[in-house]
Amino acid sequence: MSIKVIMCGLGAMGSGMARMIAEKQGIDIVAAIDASTEKKGKSLKDVLGINKYSEVIIRDDFENTIMNTEADVVLLAIDSFLEKVYPYIEFILKSKKNCITIAEEMAYPYTINQEISDKMNDIAKENDVTLLGTGVNPGFVLDTLVVVLSAACRKIEKIKAVRINDLSPFGTTVMKTQGVGLSEKEFYEGLEDGSIVGHIGFKQSIPLVAKALGITIDDIEELREPIISKTYRKTPYAEVKPGMVAGCRHIAYGKYKGEVLITMEHPQQVLPELENIKTGDYIEILGDPKLSLSILPETPGGIGTIALAVNMIPQVISASAGLKTMIDLPLPHGIENSFEDQVHYYNCQGVK
Amino acid sequence: MSIKVIMCGLGAMGSGMARMIAEKQGIDIVAAIDASTEKKGKSLKDVLGINKYSEVIIRDDFENTIMNTEADVVLLAIDSFLEKVYPYIEFILKSKKNCITIAEEMAYPYTINQEISDKMNDIAKENDVTLLGTGVNPGFVLDTLVVVLSAACRKIEKIKAVRINDLSPFGTTVMKTQGVGLSEKEFYEGLEDGSIVGHIGFKQSIPLVAKALGITIDDIEELREPIISKTYRKTPYAEVKPGMVAGCRHIAYGKYKGEVLITMEHPQQVLPELENIKTGDYIEILGDPKLSLSILPETPGGIGTIALAVNMIPQVISASAGLKTMIDLPLPHGIENSFEDQVHYYNCQGVK
Repeated sequence: MSIKVIMCGLGAMGSGMARMIAEKQGIDIVAAIDASTEKKGKSLKDVLGINKYSEVIIRDDFENTIMNTEADVVLLAIDSFLEKVYPYIEFILKSKKNCITIAEEMAYPYTINQEISDKMNDIAKENDVTLLGTGVNPGFVLDTLVVVLSAACRKIEKIKAVRINDLSPFGTTVMKTQGVGLSEKEFYEGLEDGSIVGHIGFKQSIPLVAKALGITIDDIEELREPIISKTYRKTPYAEVKPGMVAGCRHIAYGKYKGEVLITMEHPQQVLPELENIKTGDYIEILGDPKLSLSILPETPGGIGTIALAVNMIPQVISASAGLKTMIDLPLPHGIENSFEDQVHYYNCQGVK
Repeated sequence: MSIKVIMCGLGAMGSGMARMIAEKQGIDIVAAIDASTEKKGKSLKDVLGINKYSEVIIRDDFENTIMNTEADVVLLAIDSFLEKVYPYIEFILKSKKNCITIAEEMAYPYTINQEISDKMNDIAKENDVTLLGTGVNPGFVLDTLVVVLSAACRKIEKIKAVRINDLSPFGTTVMKTQGVGLSEKEFYEGLEDGSIVGHIGFKQSIPLVAKALGITIDDIEELREPIISKTYRKTPYAEVKPGMVAGCRHIAYGKYKGEVLITMEHPQQVLPELENIKTGDYIEILGDPKLSLSILPETPGGIGTIALAVNMIPQVISASAGLKTMIDLPLPHGIENSFEDQVHYYNCQGVK
């Protein structure tokens, strides 16, 4: 029997997941939920052009749909923050359905709210289902890949991981949260009033890496500064004149007793190549041996997040009950055969 | 209680594992076995300079030592080939001890001998223990890393993975099996008579990747050719004049109905930088998206194998019973805290 999925949230990410699933074998979308009034009542064929799902009608009644639809897993793509997604997650778990969310804070929610995290773990266990937060970052580039690379090390002293990307494909919301096009003064005001957030994920990636590797961290310090452009940069959603802000250089330090053990940098700007900056993912482990990994250009953010969420479905369905992170499950990977066969494989292997 | 390890085989790899373990917490070597008459009766302090283990006396009576020593896991580093290690593995499993081996063929033994593989799986299950084959390659660079990278892909069409290394640190045995210093004619004679083997691992890495990703392969074709040197190359164990063989370019193709889906290349030679060849690990996934990863210089072979074998101990001890591969266990990673705490973590998480 095919894996049954409920899509919850049909923004850019949720829509992408639905399109990806439509191309895959042994997996089907059985229901779709979105809060927008324009989508309500239309089919996935009408809204996303997925012919296969002409009979999946988009609904806005979250509770009824979750409760009354038989499904193996709910893909939740509605928000970045733990407290925003928590009520939805609670309901999904209590309806005895596994849940994968791309809410960034859910990649490792313990640093955000230990109490809610413990509660989610308890509810998942009581209902014998599994909960995972994943995505490209947090969830993959600055944590999973760092963790896996370290397997070839006898000793790890320090870690530096950098992700340099290009915000050009993104729309106005992202431009605003990264301060693109602002003056330096406006950027700092935006930091102050919370409208500029930079990257959401360091509080997840750093503890994930530290926990997996057994590195003790007692402080995570974050630094956000404007990337002042020397050149004129223009995208469909942003214009940056020389001297104005091209994006946000967000850096985080995982420290122990004042010493920096893990450094993560994620400068996000439009068109970095105009100033000869190569986009890419860079991981350096200082240890024995020293290892330097790069992915050039960088793992694409949107596609990567979509792929991670969908590709982790078999591991999540097969896992033991509870709140999991990427370090608790078997290797993530792309899937070209049937999702059902993947679940069957993990079950036969006794993999949890 | 600390994890108890029996070291079996104290060549370069086994000795390296013993030294690594001596530096780690929550893990101890409780016995050491080696067939060499020179080492017999001496302590790990005498032979390897590990002061901590002055009371671990090296023995050559494998069966007695395995049977009469209480231990959680045996690290087996004695040979590359399934049929050579199988009798040892069988005995270890029947003594109800987990086993990690760096025998290359054990990274995925099914392509070598399905019957023995099934038997090992059965014996492991009957005795409630776990068996894993790992190492830097096969086990990590050309399989685990490829598998993990693919998680960011919606679709995978073809894969190419290349590992370019420098054989200079190795001794005469490796020089001979790679044909270093021979004439082209002697190289082909060596291939013919089996004295030149190239890389052992493609028959493991290709099926591991294919299986994880659900890519069907019906043939693995291997090609070995001499790397003819244009320059004079000299190492402590080899001399290569221009026109002679600097090493073996070993290539393997994973095919389906004649079409190559997975290509793996591992040219092994001494001092490739003399001809401006950069050593490194290179993975390219052609799909959606296309991803290009490199590790420069390459993940070191010896240290990497030592690290992988030791770092996988917690996952193996916590795993469900049976013959496992790297795609069945939680993320591999380096360990800076206590090995015992790592096992405790996996047990608490219900990870198998």
